[in-house]
Amino acid sequence: MIEIVLLGSGNVATHLFKAFSASEGIRVKQVYNHSEKTLDFFRSKCDVTTEISELAPADIYIMALKDDVVPEISEKLKDLNALIAHTSGSVALDALRACSRRGVYYPLQTFSKDNDVNYSEIPFCLEANTAQDLEILKTLASKVSGNCYEISSEQRKKLHLSAVFVCNFVNHLYAVGEQICKQNDIPFDILKPLIAETAGKVQHASPAGVQTGPAIRNDQSTIKAHLDLLESGENKKIYELLTSAIKTFHGKKL
Amino acid sequence: MIEIVLLGSGNVATHLFKAFSASEGIRVKQVYNHSEKTLDFFRSKCDVTTEISELAPADIYIMALKDDVVPEISEKLKDLNALIAHTSGSVALDALRACSRRGVYYPLQTFSKDNDVNYSEIPFCLEANTAQDLEILKTLASKVSGNCYEISSEQRKKLHLSAVFVCNFVNHLYAVGEQICKQNDIPFDILKPLIAETAGKVQHASPAGVQTGPAIRNDQSTIKAHLDLLESGENKKIYELLTSAIKTFHGKKL
Repeated sequence: MIEIVLLGSGNVATHLFKAFSASEGIRVKQVYNHSEKTLDFFRSKCDVTTEISELAPADIYIMALKDDVVPEISEKLKDLNALIAHTSGSVALDALRACSRRGVYYPLQTFSKDNDVNYSEIPFCLEANTAQDLEILKTLASKVSGNCYEISSEQRKKLHLSAVFVCNFVNHLYAVGEQICKQNDIPFDILKPLIAETAGKVQHASPAGVQTGPAIRNDQSTIKAHLDLLESGENKKIYELLTSAIKTFHGKKL
Repeated sequence: MIEIVLLGSGNVATHLFKAFSASEGIRVKQVYNHSEKTLDFFRSKCDVTTEISELAPADIYIMALKDDVVPEISEKLKDLNALIAHTSGSVALDALRACSRRGVYYPLQTFSKDNDVNYSEIPFCLEANTAQDLEILKTLASKVSGNCYEISSEQRKKLHLSAVFVCNFVNHLYAVGEQICKQNDIPFDILKPLIAETAGKVQHASPAGVQTGPAIRNDQSTIKAHLDLLESGENKKIYELLTSAIKTFHGKKL
């Protein structure tokens, strides 16, 4: 049985709590947060606290906190003499240097409060300062998911950057599509199968190999017609830049 | 029984042929293409021809051809006195004005040769110059899919533009993610559950309402760290523009 104390009560903490609760051999003993109000969800399920000084003994302390408080809170955990891990894509392992046993337990997924996630498919990106603690994190991750990867702090920064492109920026392009539909009394539902198929295709094929559309065809008349439909502003700039980026990427003449 | 002649033998024609073949009450009598070589797939399944003058009698002639040849080929079909429909997102109904009975049968999906598509979910965007012919196209589409929409030429142009954002541009962002992974010895597989979840979320939620990431959090330190990781070039420009576009869209200070 691996005993966990979870620090934080936001989206990542809540989803990790649910994932741990659904897995055998893991027990979340306690959830810490500096303010009371977001602890309500956890109160009926385990011990909760707002005081670092009242943290329960555990095998692993997992910090699902805002990036900028990670070093400061880890400083306060140094005397626990347990494995301290953070869950951030962009914070280096070294940010926990106050703690002798330190690790990273980064679930690469987009979490929102109301959306249930298939935990068994979440890729966990793991790192630790000793081989033993890396094994402990692998054991913890493999109880939740079949996808565990050993990823260095350097790689994790790049991975987090990639995730911004394929998740946050992609979602904004969906929002632009929705906006254009709304402005023209078109139900956004029409685009949903296309969105699903576009994401589905790259599960089994290299995205670079399945690029379609007017930019890669160098179809100047469609590109011009589209630019004429867009008013000056961010959407037009996005159309121009991504069209030129697709041409450059695939070695077309600009 | 609706009898069809299909003009064209590319991705859209091939997928429409498969979708029609899998549906009750539709028969593709003949496939036309100006050159022999891409007709091989169809040869064993129905009559094929390379001559417009040899087109068979049919209820509907469906043109799955390059946009720019649609007006010229439709001119040659005007004496058939049947319903002539094109399948293009960006060509107006009026491009078929030579034909007295004209329509649009636009399947809004991304097709590639090797990828099988769930035809029952393809949204068909329909338009015709008479109510009777619109009904005929609705009947044809509903035999294939549960998703049929009446969409005007003006709306269809905007829809096609939206599709470039949510499909072609999105795919390029996947390609950028893959590129960053490759350059850093990270398996692209790690990003696939995130890609699937990001597309899955907007099937049931407004993309504008589920935007996440450093831009909407106005997380300057992460944005700066990401820009420092990117060399000058298209990827850095995309990061800068989409970050500023997300802030503008959601009313954050630039």
